[in-house]
Amino acid sequence: MIHARNFARNGIADARLVAIADPAYTALQHGCQELGITRGCSEYRELLRDPTIHAVVVAAPSAYHCEIVVASARAGKHILCEKPMAMNVAESDAILAAVEQAGVKLQIGFMRRYDASFIDAKQRVDSGEIGRVVLVKSVTHGPTTPKPWMYDIRKSNGPLSEVNSHDIDTVRWFCNTDFEEVYAIAGNYRSPEAQERYPDFYDNVILSARLENGMQGAIAGAQGVQYGYDARCEILGEKGLVTVGRLATNSVTTHTVAGSTNQNVHSWMDLFRDAYRAEDEDFIRCILEDRQPRANGHDGKAAVMVVNAGNRSIVERRPVRLTGDREQ
Amino acid sequence: MIHARNFARNGIADARLVAIADPAYTALQHGCQELGITRGCSEYRELLRDPTIHAVVVAAPSAYHCEIVVASARAGKHILCEKPMAMNVAESDAILAAVEQAGVKLQIGFMRRYDASFIDAKQRVDSGEIGRVVLVKSVTHGPTTPKPWMYDIRKSNGPLSEVNSHDIDTVRWFCNTDFEEVYAIAGNYRSPEAQERYPDFYDNVILSARLENGMQGAIAGAQGVQYGYDARCEILGEKGLVTVGRLATNSVTTHTVAGSTNQNVHSWMDLFRDAYRAEDEDFIRCILEDRQPRANGHDGKAAVMVVNAGNRSIVERRPVRLTGDREQ
Amino acid sequence: MIHARNFARNGIADARLVAIADPAYTALQHGCQELGITRGCSEYRELLRDPTIHAVVVAAPSAYHCEIVVASARAGKHILCEKPMAMNVAESDAILAAVEQAGVKLQIGFMRRYDASFIDAKQRVDSGEIGRVVLVKSVTHGPTTPKPWMYDIRKSNGPLSEVNSHDIDTVRWFCNTDFEEVYAIAGNYRSPEAQERYPDFYDNVILSARLENGMQGAIAGAQGVQYGYDARCEILGEKGLVTVGRLATNSVTTHTVAGSTNQNVHSWMDLFRDAYRAEDEDFIRCILEDRQPRANGHDGKAAVMVVNAGNRSIVERRPVRLTGDREQ
Amino acid sequence: MIHARNFARNGIADARLVAIADPAYTALQHGCQELGITRGCSEYRELLRDPTIHAVVVAAPSAYHCEIVVASARAGKHILCEKPMAMNVAESDAILAAVEQAGVKLQIGFMRRYDASFIDAKQRVDSGEIGRVVLVKSVTHGPTTPKPWMYDIRKSNGPLSEVNSHDIDTVRWFCNTDFEEVYAIAGNYRSPEAQERYPDFYDNVILSARLENGMQGAIAGAQGVQYGYDARCEILGEKGLVTVGRLATNSVTTHTVAGSTNQNVHSWMDLFRDAYRAEDEDFIRCILEDRQPRANGHDGKAAVMVVNAGNRSIVERRPVRLTGDREQ
Repeated sequence: MIHARNFARNGIADARLVAIADPAYTALQHGCQELGITRGCSEYRELLRDPTIHAVVVAAPSAYHCEIVVASARAGKHILCEKPMAMNVAESDAILAAVEQAGVKLQIGFMRRYDASFIDAKQRVDSGEIGRVVLVKSVTHGPTTPKPWMYDIRKSNGPLSEVNSHDIDTVRWFCNTDFEEVYAIAGNYRSPEAQERYPDFYDNVILSARLENGMQGAIAGAQGVQYGYDARCEILGEKGLVTVGRLATNSVTTHTVAGSTNQNVHSWMDLFRDAYRAEDEDFIRCILEDRQPRANGHDGKAAVMVVNAGNRSIVERRPVRLTGDREQ
Repeated sequence: MIHARNFARNGIADARLVAIADPAYTALQHGCQELGITRGCSEYRELLRDPTIHAVVVAAPSAYHCEIVVASARAGKHILCEKPMAMNVAESDAILAAVEQAGVKLQIGFMRRYDASFIDAKQRVDSGEIGRVVLVKSVTHGPTTPKPWMYDIRKSNGPLSEVNSHDIDTVRWFCNTDFEEVYAIAGNYRSPEAQERYPDFYDNVILSARLENGMQGAIAGAQGVQYGYDARCEILGEKGLVTVGRLATNSVTTHTVAGSTNQNVHSWMDLFRDAYRAEDEDFIRCILEDRQPRANGHDGKAAVMVVNAGNRSIVERRPVRLTGDREQ
Repeated sequence: MIHARNFARNGIADARLVAIADPAYTALQHGCQELGITRGCSEYRELLRDPTIHAVVVAAPSAYHCEIVVASARAGKHILCEKPMAMNVAESDAILAAVEQAGVKLQIGFMRRYDASFIDAKQRVDSGEIGRVVLVKSVTHGPTTPKPWMYDIRKSNGPLSEVNSHDIDTVRWFCNTDFEEVYAIAGNYRSPEAQERYPDFYDNVILSARLENGMQGAIAGAQGVQYGYDARCEILGEKGLVTVGRLATNSVTTHTVAGSTNQNVHSWMDLFRDAYRAEDEDFIRCILEDRQPRANGHDGKAAVMVVNAGNRSIVERRPVRLTGDREQ
Repeated sequence: MIHARNFARNGIADARLVAIADPAYTALQHGCQELGITRGCSEYRELLRDPTIHAVVVAAPSAYHCEIVVASARAGKHILCEKPMAMNVAESDAILAAVEQAGVKLQIGFMRRYDASFIDAKQRVDSGEIGRVVLVKSVTHGPTTPKPWMYDIRKSNGPLSEVNSHDIDTVRWFCNTDFEEVYAIAGNYRSPEAQERYPDFYDNVILSARLENGMQGAIAGAQGVQYGYDARCEILGEKGLVTVGRLATNSVTTHTVAGSTNQNVHSWMDLFRDAYRAEDEDFIRCILEDRQPRANGHDGKAAVMVVNAGNRSIVERRPVRLTGDREQ
């Protein structure tokens, strides 16, 4: 809904939200009401047939991304697809082919590339302030507990996909390179109710990586941490360090006998509100100015490959190599 | 222009910018162009005659506020007037009378009352977390050098008016009371070019105050500090302290052999962007829902009285008492 | 006892604690036991007669400083006297005369001049990093409630003396000048039990000052704040700001659903432990190398004069001028 | 020398430094002079023969630890041995056997266990504030470039041993368990001069670990980072996070047009000064009170095993399992 709200209410120039699609009737009704629009469809294909609609935002569950994105591309719509782009390499390739054939824009929802702090950090790193990059660490810890549909890792691709796709993209972005080999350790520490039926489910994961240009990457993901939405990144260079991210939700500190306390941000929607808006604006500009989005289908696929390799590494307890289109 | 941009581009619900007025022709042209509007007048009274215009934002130099606000009220327009509301008590009273007679809304541009951090701090203080308030310190240091029209304190009311009106309002807001007596010290430390012709000009001021309910207030103002736009507030209670404000412009820290460095925010427009938007939204809501703005004409007048008393204290080197409508 | 512990246990070179004096028998016994020494006197003059004792530390209640310091000087002992040096100008002058006549060293316990952070800040300011100094703010808020003997301001000189002597010295030190005129506001907010019998007692005070070289000073003091021992200083220059001090007692932050919390330092003994040690070491070095202490009797007297002027300002509700040896 | 200085000058109760040994004549001379002692030997065994010496501190290069510690134990001396305890399991076992047979105390120099912040963090974690521990991250980045004797990893065990032994111990300490399996990635990014002759040398390493009780560990090490001595730790629990460590060397921040800057600590000697002192004091107390040191020979051996397994993982590019006394 964050994209829908932006297009409906926050004045994204040259764009207007005309319709939403959702198979769940109640959600659809609430959505239309909140967004102040009259057109809601339970079947997204209906909208794809409307020639006056030029672009779509795909924010469905990840497992449906491939089908919807391919259909949208074939219908000639430009697409802003939420991360993860797809579930595996085959789906990613199908998307890339459809998009290329249709000649539409495909932007992947890696909104951190539009966040003012991340952009500033990227520019500092690129300017050489800390020398060549050696290691990028990126962490995303979320306060909310995993949804039950995530328990089956084979179907959901787990937190590596749902939570850490952003971190994977961040590492690639700061390092200007691809992942070569990953090793991951994971476990279920906070969801005992899932343990018996889904022994492979994990809510905490660390992944370390060799990158193709010799740099190092380290990613951590956690769900249900309660203390806040924690998205931090450290870029270690030859001669310096750049750190990005803070937990505090605002600039207020309360000092009492219990100590000095800041309240923390608890949702990515709050932390990245401006980034989402900038992302939505840039999507429209990319279409109108006919240029590539900052994060495109190849970036989406690259993240999917790391997710798959990471999940395999967790199960097989060995480093997994990404070569060409398949991890080994 | 920050209000104009909000109404023109940032989707303030139920409001639409239709025209701007500016006696300077080039500024007017640029303004219309940037805002994407066609109606620009050199004479604001022309717009006041248009019955389809329901509300105005007054962001002219402070010396013109009284004239414009009174004219706007008489024309039946609701008014959002930037701080300071006026130059003195007489002007303030003229405004209050005109607004009351016309039955229009008058909101004063104390946008800190709409800032998420300040609001959070206010709620914490009101909740009793730190006990009864004892002392409120509020500081505004600005990076930009004073404009030459500010040199003549008799005409401009100086930094106490242009910079610290916000701090005065903040102290009143957190203490839920009025100023009783103020003492101020000021000097010109950064504007040697003004020293000879305007010996009374100051670019640095500290003001301490007894408040009517016995609390204490301490305000500091500075212009041309270069290091950033520094707006911080400390509320000391019987048993705790709440601090508000930070200088860092984002969450990036660069760690090199030179130390660990954050870049600072350099403009109130960046620091209070969201607050201005919330202020503009609330102005419209106050009109539509027929309720009092958070900061109204009485708040505006109260700040003007402190400014005048502070300036007198600086010159006469003694504490100045505010009783009823006149300082002594 | 902090000095005694340093000399007894922390290996201050070329110095050895041989005796302590305290009229309270139990305290004396406990002191000797804790310090591992056998010589304790109820009457300090007994120790002054011992020619093998070369130096004394005076940490008695402020009202006794003058008598003890003068006696010590006459006995030819070098003296480290805790702040405040004395109760008024007459006592200060008596001390200065006795010390000069005896040719002994007198060091005043302004240990912030020996604190690594304050020294670093002083060097940065002196190096011109922020331009010429414009305003120094210094705050000391203490967690402990005032002792009953402080209630009678005429006898105790109040928090300005007991708490803010340090801040007064800090302002003088950073500005390299003396106070010219002070204005103070004070009140009793946390000690209702003292209100009736000691209507003049205050536990919260703000003092603003013109300094002789045109700089500005602002001091705040509070007792019983509960949230920690809060000693911070801000030096505002023409083109920058240096801030000193932090509340956090160590580098641990706990992030939970309640927020991110640091524990605060609760005693000056913890915050300035290293500074006290450095101060004690330098006292011995000043004696052995025959040089002036960093804070000497003239610094002590200067602070006493500000205290007296500030207390008079509170009562008479007007700015008080310090000229020569008497405030007006 | 940090231990020698503590025992010589900083008044460690019930201990006195009587002699130092160093085969390098000039270093020995300078050492004696600085420490104010007269007894310096080029041959440490000479001191071991002195029955009036009860305890020794072993701060020789790591490769000599085993020989010296074993000899010291056989001579009946209590031993404080700097980390790493030894080069491999065989050496570790030799040390453990000698110490056990001699009935002397062996304390390993994991001084972070004596650091006030680390101790506070440990207590918070143990108290359950953040729930059960899930993941401990520990990072040590040092500003100094590796010494040439470290280039040959086979002989030096590399940064994992010299730098990260502390982090390994920290993970074990916070998790109350041992390492089960480690995977490490390393590279040489800052020492091009070593590249050709020592292709295995690394100056940057990340190590991830499964712990025996199912918790996760992540360690990062770097040399020559220039920006400061950076020793931070994060303990992620089921429902919270505890962070330890800060870079700022003191509480001073300079705010100029270049931003807000803190100077960083550049040496472990500055960061852990108090911890070293506490460690030295506790060593003496353990001897006198006949109790086990906080970090004993088994802790030393456990860290050595992780170092060896990590170095093997780097070369063989696979996770290495630690079972019983040998990694696989």
